[in-house]
Amino acid sequence: MSENPSNRTIPSMESLVTLCKRRGFIFQSSEIYGGYAGFFDYGPLGAELKRNVKDAWWKALVHERDDVLGLDSSIIMHPQIWKASGHVDGFADPMVDCKESKKRYRADQLFFAPVRVDGETIGYVSVEEADDMQAQADEKASELKRKLGRQGNLDPVVLQEYTEALPEEYALIPSPATGKPGSLMEPRQFNLMFETKVGPLADASAVSYLRPETAQGIFQNYRNVVDTGRVKIPFGIAQIGKAFRNEITPRNFIFRSREFEQMELEYFINPDDATWPEVYRYWIDWCKNWLVSVGIPADMVGEDVHPAEKLSHYSKGTTDLTFKFPFGTQELWGIACRGNFDLTQHQQHSGKSMEFFDEARKEKYIPHVVEPSLGVDRTILAILTAAYTEDEVPNDKGAPEKRTFLRFAPQIAPYKAAVFPLLKNKPELVETARKLYEQLRRRWNIGWDVSGAIGRRYRRQDEIGTPYGITVDFDTIEKDQCVTIRDRDTTEQVRIALDQVESWLAERIG
Amino acid sequence: MSENPSNRTIPSMESLVTLCKRRGFIFQSSEIYGGYAGFFDYGPLGAELKRNVKDAWWKALVHERDDVLGLDSSIIMHPQIWKASGHVDGFADPMVDCKESKKRYRADQLFFAPVRVDGETIGYVSVEEADDMQAQADEKASELKRKLGRQGNLDPVVLQEYTEALPEEYALIPSPATGKPGSLMEPRQFNLMFETKVGPLADASAVSYLRPETAQGIFQNYRNVVDTGRVKIPFGIAQIGKAFRNEITPRNFIFRSREFEQMELEYFINPDDATWPEVYRYWIDWCKNWLVSVGIPADMVGEDVHPAEKLSHYSKGTTDLTFKFPFGTQELWGIACRGNFDLTQHQQHSGKSMEFFDEARKEKYIPHVVEPSLGVDRTILAILTAAYTEDEVPNDKGAPEKRTFLRFAPQIAPYKAAVFPLLKNKPELVETARKLYEQLRRRWNIGWDVSGAIGRRYRRQDEIGTPYGITVDFDTIEKDQCVTIRDRDTTEQVRIALDQVESWLAERIG
Repeated sequence: MSENPSNRTIPSMESLVTLCKRRGFIFQSSEIYGGYAGFFDYGPLGAELKRNVKDAWWKALVHERDDVLGLDSSIIMHPQIWKASGHVDGFADPMVDCKESKKRYRADQLFFAPVRVDGETIGYVSVEEADDMQAQADEKASELKRKLGRQGNLDPVVLQEYTEALPEEYALIPSPATGKPGSLMEPRQFNLMFETKVGPLADASAVSYLRPETAQGIFQNYRNVVDTGRVKIPFGIAQIGKAFRNEITPRNFIFRSREFEQMELEYFINPDDATWPEVYRYWIDWCKNWLVSVGIPADMVGEDVHPAEKLSHYSKGTTDLTFKFPFGTQELWGIACRGNFDLTQHQQHSGKSMEFFDEARKEKYIPHVVEPSLGVDRTILAILTAAYTEDEVPNDKGAPEKRTFLRFAPQIAPYKAAVFPLLKNKPELVETARKLYEQLRRRWNIGWDVSGAIGRRYRRQDEIGTPYGITVDFDTIEKDQCVTIRDRDTTEQVRIALDQVESWLAERIG
Repeated sequence: MSENPSNRTIPSMESLVTLCKRRGFIFQSSEIYGGYAGFFDYGPLGAELKRNVKDAWWKALVHERDDVLGLDSSIIMHPQIWKASGHVDGFADPMVDCKESKKRYRADQLFFAPVRVDGETIGYVSVEEADDMQAQADEKASELKRKLGRQGNLDPVVLQEYTEALPEEYALIPSPATGKPGSLMEPRQFNLMFETKVGPLADASAVSYLRPETAQGIFQNYRNVVDTGRVKIPFGIAQIGKAFRNEITPRNFIFRSREFEQMELEYFINPDDATWPEVYRYWIDWCKNWLVSVGIPADMVGEDVHPAEKLSHYSKGTTDLTFKFPFGTQELWGIACRGNFDLTQHQQHSGKSMEFFDEARKEKYIPHVVEPSLGVDRTILAILTAAYTEDEVPNDKGAPEKRTFLRFAPQIAPYKAAVFPLLKNKPELVETARKLYEQLRRRWNIGWDVSGAIGRRYRRQDEIGTPYGITVDFDTIEKDQCVTIRDRDTTEQVRIALDQVESWLAERIG
């Protein structure tokens, strides 16, 4: 692995998941009960990492800018909001039921193909989406030919999404569960919002939803913020919080889970046609720079511009910042120009005016919006992917030894530094180290480790991404009142005066 | 209002709610749709306040201690967890249905009384819980007597909870909705957990719950933390996160809402009978001190020790720290000694061992636990209550003027300071002020205000609890390179060198 982008090594998902579990970053939820698909828990180190990522975003956007205000709205809101936003009617995935097995498939993850021998269709095969689905389909096709005792040449098996099946084909395509045709149904829409009931009554009036995005919490508070926040267009409202989607097939660890956290900004602008393209570009660049600031190398981030014909009717443009995840290049951050669709919908459904009086332009309008929307968990997965590094460094005896370490940016590392007394049974070492540790942890989260050879302690901190290891040795107390600070990435060591350690770290950590 | 505890003035709820709404601390959720009972949104200033409260707790507990690790588990977990914890079967309030009106009452908030004339029962009255419910009941009794044309003396009307009604009385007690007897049902248990369905199937196997407490997220991860965290007994696991309870009658603003946030610690100890009382007392005191550290005066906090006969069978003791809220003295922080009930239940239901091998004692046991459990929203309401102050200070012309201000501890104030150029149309003032503002906001959340007389700007910051107002005036740029820093509470002003402002603030803010 190297800093050279052209031959960057992407770690396997397995090595990431294993490290996350072994060192207490991320666990499958409810593990003692066999796990719960689509839900994850952040362990002691993961909770710190997540806090740091969220703080970095909030600080850059809310604290260090004049034009963005923060918000923290509830997860459960008035159900009318999801009617207005279009989620009640439109936030759905196509699903296919198998009558016989009672299994349910996402129609866009179920594939089928006619099996043809010398141009004549002898039946159908079906497979669930997988890396080797073509091979699976080929094998099933050969088997079908053999079973039917057909001679001749099998034509190439061309897979299609079940969503593209013709109505007359539904009855001919076998269910992957039973291997037999006749049980698959027509695809139907399945809403991804989690439903619950609020209040003591259990009738339809009580139906409510867990928010599938934090954005609508911003739109429904737009008036409140305008009325209390002394804002001028352009301005933004930023929010971090949990969102929930009942994904039919959660997958890729924390990439697509059912409960996740979002960091969303709605940036309100005037409706001039000349305004949005510039603001759009500005936020795409801002987002890229922010990713770099938390340790994601620019060369792992791409831009995926949605083609005009695939945009919603109200959308003027959407660009996804993509990232090279271990399972492929996928969306990390969506930047969408949503026009004034959401505010207009809420004005219509609530009867409350969403107009803004622009003092500079002396006109009233419903602002347009540019929305950069980022998942916290995806960001963490990207940071872990980029940080995971294997190299060789000399062990305590000077022999080269393989090591795994996380090259976290200091700003987001769970521990900023760890303090070690060289020996744990020398009270004068422990006391001096302890004093330093207690001084530093008033300002940062700091590790403390007294057990094992110092090389092993460095290695333990490397693996959890602690940028600096600070050792108090006999020279510290007998000679120079200095400590050794070792750099995680280079393993180089410098000698720093005890009373300079805090400012030395502050310069590097921020 | 004064610092003298004996004559401390508690603000009215109305003045708090009004200030929260006017200045963007807290809004009713979904206001544009008429509101949504039991749900609240934190506006720009409230979101900062909440972040600061949570950070203060996390820092004191997780970062500044060796024996507590953090966790961030999911809101939706395996439903088996709530079976094991007892919530599926036992987490319920008694409810009463009115067959005719379809209204539903909490049985412990519905009161009734027989109406007696000279000792003879002539009927019943009922009222919903309210400050004036006795007066309401008296009036209803007089009316009943008049309606029935009875002579004689009305006996005193003695109200009882509906939960205490005898089965033969259900049919005799009038429904408050209709005023007539015959429609109220027997009380029945209503589970407070919000239910949802997870996964594509909509059958009973999909039923899941929104967590009603964060604590079980800790217990179900206890093994993971023990296996990865290198812990020794005693140790704690701390978590901050949302929890949900379908309260039948949410009330008192953010005190009892349906969606709220908790800060919970589970502190694991050995099972010795001599251990828990000391740890219990330790945490009660720790919690009190923490409240004081975030600006809640000690004299507003009380201790309510639960009597032994009211404890659950497994509980060894529970103490509530109470606070003098505007609506009365109520629970703020519960410190409970739960024995090893939760871990034992999870061991039994999951089949996974929850035993800990205590190296020091050379024995294996299921740890006992002391649980300090605090609501974020209640803490914020307590902080607002304690901070709300009215006094008189001279205005720009020296005349006394009433002012309202929030006496927040600097650590939790949304803005740590605000920077003002004396005049907004003097570029040299604005430029110097701006430079200072940009320097300070790299470290803290800082306000900026250029409009209006300086006295008005101070007042605006007073009202949102900003501890320090920093003014750049002509002397700053022409003479002394100093600024005026004005103290929110005393309104006293000091002159500090521009290049000393950051360190001056750091000493006071932390």
